[in-house]
Amino acid sequence: MDYIEIIGIVAGILTSIAFIPQIVRIRKTKSTKDLSWSMFLVFTVGIILWLIYGAMINEFPVILANVITLVFCLTILFYKFKYND
Amino acid sequence: MDYIEIIGIVAGILTSIAFIPQIVRIRKTKSTKDLSWSMFLVFTVGIILWLIYGAMINEFPVILANVITLVFCLTILFYKFKYND
Repeated sequence: MDYIEIIGIVAGILTSIAFIPQIVRIRKTKSTKDLSWSMFLVFTVGIILWLIYGAMINEFPVILANVITLVFCLTILFYKFKYND
Repeated sequence: MDYIEIIGIVAGILTSIAFIPQIVRIRKTKSTKDLSWSMFLVFTVGIILWLIYGAMINEFPVILANVITLVFCLTILFYKFKYND
């Protein structure tokens, strides 16, 4: 693994785990009022396309990051739906 | 431009413009209470690393997407700071 791939993997880890504190906050406050439906819907579709793109250019960091991010985004959308804000 | 690059560019456009409705919502409600500081801080650092990674593997969609996303994330952080939620 070269250092470029390491930067990509760290980048992917950060932009994926970034959603964890948002999920923690939602679970604590049970409020998603200030989160935009459109943001998370458009973002999720984009992540699915990034995943396809990553698979096509065969870049492991892009694939890994987007699988994880997709799970977190779907979780946030689930809470947004659940709390119906 | 081949179709793989087009998928990457569309993906990049979606995960970048996704932040626009969030910014619009913040400007309308003047509230960022439910947005997690940690999410946007960690995400922004990740985006900066994606930008470096994109430049290193010389993938234009990765570079373009992350420059635009960075501007939007900094805008959201600015509002989060401004409204001090």
